[in-house]
Amino acid sequence: MVYAGAMSGSGNLMDFLDEPFPDVGTYEDFHTIDWLREKSRDTDRHRKITSKSKESIWEFIKSLLDAWSGWVVMLLIGLLAGTLAGVIDLAVDWMTDLKEGVCLSAFWYSHEQCCWTSNETTFEDRDKCPLWQKWSELLVNQSEGASAYILNYLMYILWALLFAFLAVSLVRVFAPYACGSGIPEIKTILSGFIIRGYLGKWTLLIKTVTLVLVVSSGLSLGKEGPLVHVACCCGNFFSSLFSKYSKNEGKRREVLSAAAAAGVSVAFGAPIGGVLFSLEEVSYYFPLKTLWRSFFAALVAAFTLRSINPFGNSRLVLFYVEYHTPWYMAELFPFILLGVFGGLWGTLFIRCNIAWCRRRKTTRLGKYPVLEVIVVTAITAIIAYPNPYTRQSTSELISELFNDCGALESSQLCDYINDPNMTRPVDDIPDRPAGVGVYTAMWQLALALIFKIVVTIFTFGMKIPSGLFIPSMAVGAMAGRMVGIGVEQLAYHHHDWIIFRNWCRPGADCVTPGLYAMVGAAACLGGVTRMTVSLVVIMFELTGGLEYIVPLMAAAVTSKWVADAFGKEGIYEAHIHLNGYPFLDVKDEFTHRTLATDVMRPRRGEPPLSVLTQDSMTVEDVETLIKETDYNGFPVVVSRDSERLIGFAQRRELILAIKNARQRQEGIVSNSIMYFTEEPPELPANSPHPLKLRRILNLSPFTVTDHTPMETVVDIFRKLGLRQCLVTRSGRLLGIITKKDVLRHMAQMANQDPESIMFN
Amino acid sequence: MVYAGAMSGSGNLMDFLDEPFPDVGTYEDFHTIDWLREKSRDTDRHRKITSKSKESIWEFIKSLLDAWSGWVVMLLIGLLAGTLAGVIDLAVDWMTDLKEGVCLSAFWYSHEQCCWTSNETTFEDRDKCPLWQKWSELLVNQSEGASAYILNYLMYILWALLFAFLAVSLVRVFAPYACGSGIPEIKTILSGFIIRGYLGKWTLLIKTVTLVLVVSSGLSLGKEGPLVHVACCCGNFFSSLFSKYSKNEGKRREVLSAAAAAGVSVAFGAPIGGVLFSLEEVSYYFPLKTLWRSFFAALVAAFTLRSINPFGNSRLVLFYVEYHTPWYMAELFPFILLGVFGGLWGTLFIRCNIAWCRRRKTTRLGKYPVLEVIVVTAITAIIAYPNPYTRQSTSELISELFNDCGALESSQLCDYINDPNMTRPVDDIPDRPAGVGVYTAMWQLALALIFKIVVTIFTFGMKIPSGLFIPSMAVGAMAGRMVGIGVEQLAYHHHDWIIFRNWCRPGADCVTPGLYAMVGAAACLGGVTRMTVSLVVIMFELTGGLEYIVPLMAAAVTSKWVADAFGKEGIYEAHIHLNGYPFLDVKDEFTHRTLATDVMRPRRGEPPLSVLTQDSMTVEDVETLIKETDYNGFPVVVSRDSERLIGFAQRRELILAIKNARQRQEGIVSNSIMYFTEEPPELPANSPHPLKLRRILNLSPFTVTDHTPMETVVDIFRKLGLRQCLVTRSGRLLGIITKKDVLRHMAQMANQDPESIMFN
Repeated sequence: MVYAGAMSGSGNLMDFLDEPFPDVGTYEDFHTIDWLREKSRDTDRHRKITSKSKESIWEFIKSLLDAWSGWVVMLLIGLLAGTLAGVIDLAVDWMTDLKEGVCLSAFWYSHEQCCWTSNETTFEDRDKCPLWQKWSELLVNQSEGASAYILNYLMYILWALLFAFLAVSLVRVFAPYACGSGIPEIKTILSGFIIRGYLGKWTLLIKTVTLVLVVSSGLSLGKEGPLVHVACCCGNFFSSLFSKYSKNEGKRREVLSAAAAAGVSVAFGAPIGGVLFSLEEVSYYFPLKTLWRSFFAALVAAFTLRSINPFGNSRLVLFYVEYHTPWYMAELFPFILLGVFGGLWGTLFIRCNIAWCRRRKTTRLGKYPVLEVIVVTAITAIIAYPNPYTRQSTSELISELFNDCGALESSQLCDYINDPNMTRPVDDIPDRPAGVGVYTAMWQLALALIFKIVVTIFTFGMKIPSGLFIPSMAVGAMAGRMVGIGVEQLAYHHHDWIIFRNWCRPGADCVTPGLYAMVGAAACLGGVTRMTVSLVVIMFELTGGLEYIVPLMAAAVTSKWVADAFGKEGIYEAHIHLNGYPFLDVKDEFTHRTLATDVMRPRRGEPPLSVLTQDSMTVEDVETLIKETDYNGFPVVVSRDSERLIGFAQRRELILAIKNARQRQEGIVSNSIMYFTEEPPELPANSPHPLKLRRILNLSPFTVTDHTPMETVVDIFRKLGLRQCLVTRSGRLLGIITKKDVLRHMAQMANQDPESIMFN
Repeated sequence: MVYAGAMSGSGNLMDFLDEPFPDVGTYEDFHTIDWLREKSRDTDRHRKITSKSKESIWEFIKSLLDAWSGWVVMLLIGLLAGTLAGVIDLAVDWMTDLKEGVCLSAFWYSHEQCCWTSNETTFEDRDKCPLWQKWSELLVNQSEGASAYILNYLMYILWALLFAFLAVSLVRVFAPYACGSGIPEIKTILSGFIIRGYLGKWTLLIKTVTLVLVVSSGLSLGKEGPLVHVACCCGNFFSSLFSKYSKNEGKRREVLSAAAAAGVSVAFGAPIGGVLFSLEEVSYYFPLKTLWRSFFAALVAAFTLRSINPFGNSRLVLFYVEYHTPWYMAELFPFILLGVFGGLWGTLFIRCNIAWCRRRKTTRLGKYPVLEVIVVTAITAIIAYPNPYTRQSTSELISELFNDCGALESSQLCDYINDPNMTRPVDDIPDRPAGVGVYTAMWQLALALIFKIVVTIFTFGMKIPSGLFIPSMAVGAMAGRMVGIGVEQLAYHHHDWIIFRNWCRPGADCVTPGLYAMVGAAACLGGVTRMTVSLVVIMFELTGGLEYIVPLMAAAVTSKWVADAFGKEGIYEAHIHLNGYPFLDVKDEFTHRTLATDVMRPRRGEPPLSVLTQDSMTVEDVETLIKETDYNGFPVVVSRDSERLIGFAQRRELILAIKNARQRQEGIVSNSIMYFTEEPPELPANSPHPLKLRRILNLSPFTVTDHTPMETVVDIFRKLGLRQCLVTRSGRLLGIITKKDVLRHMAQMANQDPESIMFN
């Protein structure tokens, strides 16, 4: 083993060489990181700490602290993400109710809190307590009648507009990155892209505040996606406190993956589902160590949220349910139908939303984001108020749709005609004929469904925080509940039909419309996001029973297949493409039969590759080359004739090194020869002092031969996280392939516009 | 894009070239596969089918069938694995009881089935029904007394010996691969190693039968690990029915990963835990598509098992429990203590078991496997019978230890002194003082614990199927239950102590000893296998409540940390090392500062690398080279002087190609020049017909420079699944690094014997 040689030889071991200059090893904004280099740097750091730890007890303790810092970061992320989620829940609860009225005893109470603290109310009219006053009662002392209704209607619209205006202004002025769901950008960042400020402290603050505002404003959007963004901002904040993570973009992304898991964990009260979501949907590089830590962060976040207990039911989400009746084989048919509906909805939503967003980007529409938000909010509020299912918050709507009709249920959806002769235990109510309320609810739900479908397409993508989990689930839950009630009534009135005869006798509780709502919600969510395992696990954690996995899975699989038949992209991938981020999806299979030689630059007829020679170029030559080109780096070859590759030099580090040398090193002038070899070249007398740049040379650049199939090249880029790869034939340098080239080639093969890939 | 060039150029696209000869693209036994090549071959196949599918409707249907075959395979695996698990459970149940007695009404009934069918029994003495006769009753008509006891004792030992002897003989004669747990080998196979017959039909059959025998014989082993092996055999069997999987070793391994998930799913009744186990512990290459399919297979297997319902409780495992009482913060201390115990047990077990297995391998002991099994079985049976906790099957023991003491519980462990003045609902029994039975149980458990610890070390690794999940869990459950009872009695007698005062008032049910047993089981299992997330999820699915995740996680984390402090290897990795399999663990971090040049062969002073030249060697030269060396392949260079690399030729394919050419092609003699270029070299007149071998040349061999840090090389080998990698400097070939070289280097760096890595 030649350790000495090993130390001085590798371009990766810069830390150990003399005089490292500042900013080496960082990246420019909107550029891709080099995973291998980050990993190598972390190993160096780790080696240094391990070898130092044997020197003294203090160093040993420091090394222990370093080893534990990962867990500490996870703990902090879990605590903060859980707390923020709780605060958001409480604030949204209060502000949503503020649109309808105010609590006289304390204005910061929500409707429910107000009436719980009031002693006068009985259980039955929880919703009507004297302390809670609608705006019409407070302002003109009227609670009934047309004028009161109109006043309440106006106040509702007014508050909604106020919240929305505040939100969009805050986003525009303080943190433009706080808009949208954030998941497409987080996926891109986790795959190794740099977007400075996207996970910054301002984004964290503004996104949290505006999230409360927009959800309260009644717009058709959810808080789940943005919560993942908020959790990732927490992760970024805490990782900046520890040099292990702040100085290494690769390690930082491990923390962010875990933070994403914590975000989903609090959004859905599903820690395992959150980890799987992070693994399946968001993360790119997910070592097993991260799995364990993500799980820890997700659990801490869930327990923090539970101890805040924002809904007062010691559950993490409003729409937690437990069903008690089994499902039957014959019901798989409507479940699969719901899956088809979910897939169609997913396709429709993605196509329309992307078309609308593209129009916003390319036309004048995009120049008036505030006006757009105001208009959409006004339309939403005007249409939403008259219909009880759109007036209430979407979470409450989902909760109502998921719930089974118990004996005490007062919802319109549970207005069944009771058989007065039958007395039964509370939790086992047989199927009954539907009453007038149910029929009213059906057409109201149908109208609400159409409205939600249309308005969500226009809402997602505006310059405000907006998630689409909740609207998607609402669409599915409404469709599912309607199908469920339909099947239930069919089974009640026609229990002698052959399909019902075996399992649905009169007087039995055989159909659970709430379960249909949940299956529909899963199908629609699956159609839009194309999540699979994580979706089923999240739903499993929401219902808490292995029993219902099969219906959920049948719907999720159908929905994914149907949606995939119309286009492979989920909504997040579609938005990544729309924005031109350099995201190399792990899930896409590249199956075309092209070779590296077809993709590499220079193409035929283009000027030859810009290279550096190992010992014959002057500082000025290099500076000219840097000025004239915008490449991120240059291959270094023995000489222009032989073109035998010896390494690769990054543009950024060349610039820094030359600047540094000109300032600090004596005798370096424009005419100085730059050399990358160990020994300086033999120069004629009188020639200026040469500049040694071996320390910035990467001596192990990645190479493939020109005959390598592109599927292998794509695989290498994906799995090793490369920025670029050099192409050789029989040892001669032929060209270079960058991540952008790979992405453009993939876009071209898929008949898309290669120019849509904008960043490197 | 130069498609034509692409087609003829790549060495991977052999299918499209003329005259592919048989056996090309297969591997030899005990060799490592090339993942990149397998993937490339699958893409070719896929491309072919896609392009054909546009030709006719029949081809389109065939392409659909091909796309669906993955799901069909999963369905079949799930069905078969679930059925086999059910059959094994039923058979074990019957044969375990056969050691004690026989059912008079039908000899194929187990004790419980026998008494359930008998009408005369009341609920209280379920266990004593006239139809079930102990051997002493049947043979000498005595049910009490010393002679009856001795007769039963002898019959117990006799049956145990018979079962064990049958099992070991079957394994030796029919399927030597059926022994052990199989998980180390499956891990190795999934990482890309070929062991022919390891997952064959004979292994499946014999392992299933002998598993029943050994579990019934009362040896200290479990069926969980072997069930994973059995499920993988099913996976291998079904994948051999579809050419998509049978002809591609890479694709086949995707199926096997899913089968492993199905195996754990039925072993523990935990589908999600099974998938995570496969992901975390077993699998190597786990694309997301596999995640979804694994989940499907695991679910199908679980539902199949549930419909067989082997335990009559509609649960998938004997030891499913539901707790109703919460846990308290102060209890975390004993939980963490149990974690420490689990870690220590894990370390002790791994060290002792590996030392004993090494002794078995290297001394005469290994030559008498049948005798060894007989002796261990005899000792186990003799010691186990007198103690009720070792006499019953280990699953029953775990079930008894996990269960909380309800009102109807008749176990000795629940012999508490009831307060006659207190009447309480059945499921909320306050803490009570322990009775005589509990004290007896305590010392019996202590003896059983010591016995289990010792005997398990000697049992695991014998030439019979043996899993260690169940024995490990039993050890933990016994320790945990004892700690739990201790804490309970402490809390009862000293509820005024400061640590108990806040949460344990007299008359409250504050300590659940069963929960301690479960936490202990998780800790011990974690210490031995070093599973983390999957372990917690499996336990979560066993208890069905998010509530107990924190205690389980605290214990699992502690146990892993304690065990890792003594050595990083889990039991499976230790056995892989012991057997010298070429397994490149994804979890090991390689942090040494060596370079590719330190690892590559030839080393300094060794003869130069054996290479082929592109157009100057004769058939005889190559045959001599093949005869004299045993390398798996040879780099092809332009000429010996320039040493510029153009490709890589596999030994196996060279041999096949030459044999084929000599047989079928005219004019090929020993003097024929072999060439790898597109055009034949210019040869003097009269020289024999040259042999073109370009089609077996891999034109895109993987290369790294000599300065590449070994950590990067290790990463490349891991992530891309390479067999070998060529080392170059400035385009010149310097040497080669094979997977074996990497593993030997890693062993050397970890101060282990590099010669222990035996296969390539």
